Amino acid sequence: VNLLLHLIIGNAALELVPWEISRHPAVVRNARIREKEPASTLLDRTLHHTAMLQLKDGDRRGRPDLIHFALLEATSTPLYIQKMLKVYVHTCRDYVIHLGESVRLPKTYLRFVGLVEQLFEDGIIRTGNKTLLTLKKNRFKDLLSQIEPSKTVGFSRLGIRRPLEDIAEEHAKQSGTVLVVGGFPRGHFSEEISLNLTASYAIHTLPLEAHVIIARVLYEFEKHATI
Amino acid sequence: VNLLLHLIIGNAALELVPWEISRHPAVVRNARIREKEPASTLLDRTLHHTAMLQLKDGDRRGRPDLIHFALLEATSTPLYIQKMLKVYVHTCRDYVIHLGESVRLPKTYLRFVGLVEQLFEDGIIRTGNKTLLTLKKNRFKDLLSQIEPSKTVGFSRLGIRRPLEDIAEEHAKQSGTVLVVGGFPRGHFSEEISLNLTASYAIHTLPLEAHVIIARVLYEFEKHATI
Repeated sequence: VNLLLHLIIGNAALELVPWEISRHPAVVRNARIREKEPASTLLDRTLHHTAMLQLKDGDRRGRPDLIHFALLEATSTPLYIQKMLKVYVHTCRDYVIHLGESVRLPKTYLRFVGLVEQLFEDGIIRTGNKTLLTLKKNRFKDLLSQIEPSKTVGFSRLGIRRPLEDIAEEHAKQSGTVLVVGGFPRGHFSEEISLNLTASYAIHTLPLEAHVIIARVLYEFEKHATI
Repeated sequence: VNLLLHLIIGNAALELVPWEISRHPAVVRNARIREKEPASTLLDRTLHHTAMLQLKDGDRRGRPDLIHFALLEATSTPLYIQKMLKVYVHTCRDYVIHLGESVRLPKTYLRFVGLVEQLFEDGIIRTGNKTLLTLKKNRFKDLLSQIEPSKTVGFSRLGIRRPLEDIAEEHAKQSGTVLVVGGFPRGHFSEEISLNLTASYAIHTLPLEAHVIIARVLYEFEKHATI
């Protein structure tokens, strides 16, 4: 291992149905179809759109599909496959999911949803003696103090416009850099994340989806690794 | 528009349930749940695994999830958003899907499946007066002769190992290059595709998934465009 990178998907729009709307008909109906308790199902804009209109920051929440893509993007990269990348999801409600090494997440959305629901129930997902996922209540800054990064680099349209090649060249020199990509469909990082970034960069003039940013950033960093 | 690129997802593992297995219990059961005729549903390894054991090349077929990711990757790029990229799916059974301009495909897998099933039924998907998708029976080489590409560049592990930056630098100079990425989970391009490539390159020592190749190739080509 010649490079250790960390990727945090920050303020991720991934959570169980919150209590405020757990009795809403749309939520109850969809939970019943899946034979689950409403409060044990993931909040999902596709299913719960009307119920979510009454939620605070509703337009930034309930997008497990976006997190699914982002995670598949990250875990499909040579850096992750070769164990040079650690991946975490920090959710909008301050849970942190740690991915184990060489985890192959379900490509099927419904299986991914089922897996994450089970993770929220049990706090850990194992197969055999291997830990795939763990979940803990944890703030972004507490996760950072566990990782003890050399630098914490965020990607945001509000950041400084800088070519990604330059960013990778500067930060790939030393091990332990944390990369933070937003896991929400619109808006910007929370204040807590913003205040804990060493630097924040805009890598494009257009807004890019999380999975696109992840693909590009990991690719440019990989160019400085020996795989 | 200063650059026009074409992306073909070739030999794509996307098709309706073939007649040989349309009466298999697994196929019938899943069609019934969705209130569809078995032969009008997409072949899907997740649902039809046991039925597919008896299909020729079964391990290369029935992966709409893979095509979904690949298309979301392509349509999320600035090149596509800025109308500098045309996208096509050439299926393993010689249908060709043309994507219209600025199409936003469903991020939800089940909605994507429903859309493609409707496309196989109607041959065209419109919203308002805009054409999102069209489908025609068409061979790979017939698609090429319609596009009249300057070059046709395939990405394959059997190709010549060459840095992607060099490939992009060479081919981004002129407009009309066709890029071909395999839309199957294992194996290589069909003979018909292989014989119609101007060049075939391996961009990594590891096997990469279609969506990863698409993200990287379009990113490197984009560096030569003015967006």
